[in-house]
Amino acid sequence: MRRLLVGVLLGLSFPIVRAESPAPATAEITAVLTAQAAAWNRGDVNAFMAGYAPVADLRFASGGNVTRGWQPTLERYQKSYPDHAAMGVLTFTDLEVTVLAPEAAIVFGHWALQREKGAPHGLFTLTFRKFAEGWRIIQDHTSIAAP
Amino acid sequence: MRRLLVGVLLGLSFPIVRAESPAPATAEITAVLTAQAAAWNRGDVNAFMAGYAPVADLRFASGGNVTRGWQPTLERYQKSYPDHAAMGVLTFTDLEVTVLAPEAAIVFGHWALQREKGAPHGLFTLTFRKFAEGWRIIQDHTSIAAP
Repeated sequence: MRRLLVGVLLGLSFPIVRAESPAPATAEITAVLTAQAAAWNRGDVNAFMAGYAPVADLRFASGGNVTRGWQPTLERYQKSYPDHAAMGVLTFTDLEVTVLAPEAAIVFGHWALQREKGAPHGLFTLTFRKFAEGWRIIQDHTSIAAP
Repeated sequence: MRRLLVGVLLGLSFPIVRAESPAPATAEITAVLTAQAAAWNRGDVNAFMAGYAPVADLRFASGGNVTRGWQPTLERYQKSYPDHAAMGVLTFTDLEVTVLAPEAAIVFGHWALQREKGAPHGLFTLTFRKFAEGWRIIQDHTSIAAP
């Protein structure tokens, strides 16, 4: 019973933050991810990377490994996906955008690749910051589902 | 060169948000995680779960699976770690706290379990919100490193 009451009280505090016009932010962030998937699916890793902030403290985490910086993240993608066949067709689904502040949001979702050899898929959590140029990813944690 | 300039300009916009007294928030959040690890290591899953917000939209993602709600997350832990031997000894290391707003933060880090049978480890990204009761996890994305 005490837990239930706490839950209700906590619930009440959420709309205050979520009222900071999240709708445009959500649409803008979703557009960044849509553009990323489109770039990926035409084999353009550089355009895909435009979704990431070009900052040295960009963090890309996958499995047990962490890559720091925009350029090393680009190079990791180029090494892991050397050609269009390796890249396959990428889809993002079940996107959940949580706008935490006017200039910060978290996006959670599923990713899937369709390739000639296999169809890996998994989850991602992205931290987005709003820059003068628009919303960009500053932190990416991607995980792969067990085959 | 253009990218470098953009990076510098973007960097300038960060201190404004990060100046919202992140130090106490970081210390409070770190204390929640320290208490979680201590609870885990004495076999007390309920006390471990006190680090999570008791809300229905709590999201726990691991591998390719997503669990919703505080109670289902507790039950998942109870099922996956039925006794003290299965729980092992948990450590959180390399914590990186990013305070995105006065009441919102992201924590990234490494987790490791030492057990009689094996030593799984991996990464996590947590979204923390500040409630009247203190900082609590509202979103957890945990991944395991390939053995």
